Amino acid sequence: MFEGPVQRLIDELSRLPGIGSKSAQRLAFHLLTVEEADALRLSAAIKDMREQVSQCTRCFNVAAGELCAICRDTRRDYTLVCVVERPQDIVVVERTQEFRGSYHVLGGALSPINGIGPGQLRFDELRKRLEPEGVAELIVATNPTVEGDATAMYIAREFKPLGLRVTRLASGLPVGGDLDYADELTLGRALIGRSEL
Amino acid sequence: MFEGPVQRLIDELSRLPGIGSKSAQRLAFHLLTVEEADALRLSAAIKDMREQVSQCTRCFNVAAGELCAICRDTRRDYTLVCVVERPQDIVVVERTQEFRGSYHVLGGALSPINGIGPGQLRFDELRKRLEPEGVAELIVATNPTVEGDATAMYIAREFKPLGLRVTRLASGLPVGGDLDYADELTLGRALIGRSEL
Repeated sequence: MFEGPVQRLIDELSRLPGIGSKSAQRLAFHLLTVEEADALRLSAAIKDMREQVSQCTRCFNVAAGELCAICRDTRRDYTLVCVVERPQDIVVVERTQEFRGSYHVLGGALSPINGIGPGQLRFDELRKRLEPEGVAELIVATNPTVEGDATAMYIAREFKPLGLRVTRLASGLPVGGDLDYADELTLGRALIGRSEL
Repeated sequence: MFEGPVQRLIDELSRLPGIGSKSAQRLAFHLLTVEEADALRLSAAIKDMREQVSQCTRCFNVAAGELCAICRDTRRDYTLVCVVERPQDIVVVERTQEFRGSYHVLGGALSPINGIGPGQLRFDELRKRLEPEGVAELIVATNPTVEGDATAMYIAREFKPLGLRVTRLASGLPVGGDLDYADELTLGRALIGRSEL
């Protein structure tokens, strides 16, 4: 319907997650009307990211070189490894400024229904890090979902026998939240995980 | 927080309308994990569009050459000009397949509060088209908003004295809609614009 180059951009934008054809059209016309430099900067940013960014060879985080910024930082505690599903989860944990250990990105969570078994996740890569890095504790930070829970159970079963401490993030009430709005599953977990005052 | 190239892409994506920092992050990680060719195709589509697309010198629609696809089409009726605010409005009218005339893109609607007066819109360019193209009727298809209404009134006042027929799209109930859900303004317009059975 639109001129070739506009329609091609709309088609490409529609392929992005959460962008429907209406939004794609709106974005395309926005990119058509903004300063040319702004549009070209977005184009270059996509290309540069794909050309410059790879996976950290140690923790599988996003990395601009061989190692990610966290693995390059020698002041971090490598005996403590926080196990996450995806690279973006690392940023969420980092934002707390409560964690000075390192990370390991599994690349997802166990989900037999989607054909994701232990072989599809980076458990072997994690095993290989244990001895050289002297890892003492794994903090499992998978999502509090059925898949995340299954992955946490699997990690406990596989890595505890190797003499490691395996812990998991607490589930419970959000800080600043209201008891009224807590769902029963979260409240149940908060009860089980209650702490002494 | 993220590695340089990733953060730069997130920043660029956040500048798009309707894309917040969370969505930008999600899109950036999507573009990082899809096939490289898919990501590069989006990058190229943005660049190509800016390089290849310009404004139609006649109607100010989006054009890949000097004239847009509609102005290149010699079977269209150039005595009938549909006046719209933005190029994307043309596609909406075209989809009805009820209109075989040509278009004129004003580039917005009159809005004194935003500093948009007649001088900021393409009225002079429209005036220049009247004689060479033998225009007989202007169909005003501005949005049914305060600004669109003001623009329609302005067009009627300026162009009717030149001997042109000036009409406006009907306002009324959406086809397939329910009277219950019509707001009073729309219903009021539907009453005023009622037609004989």
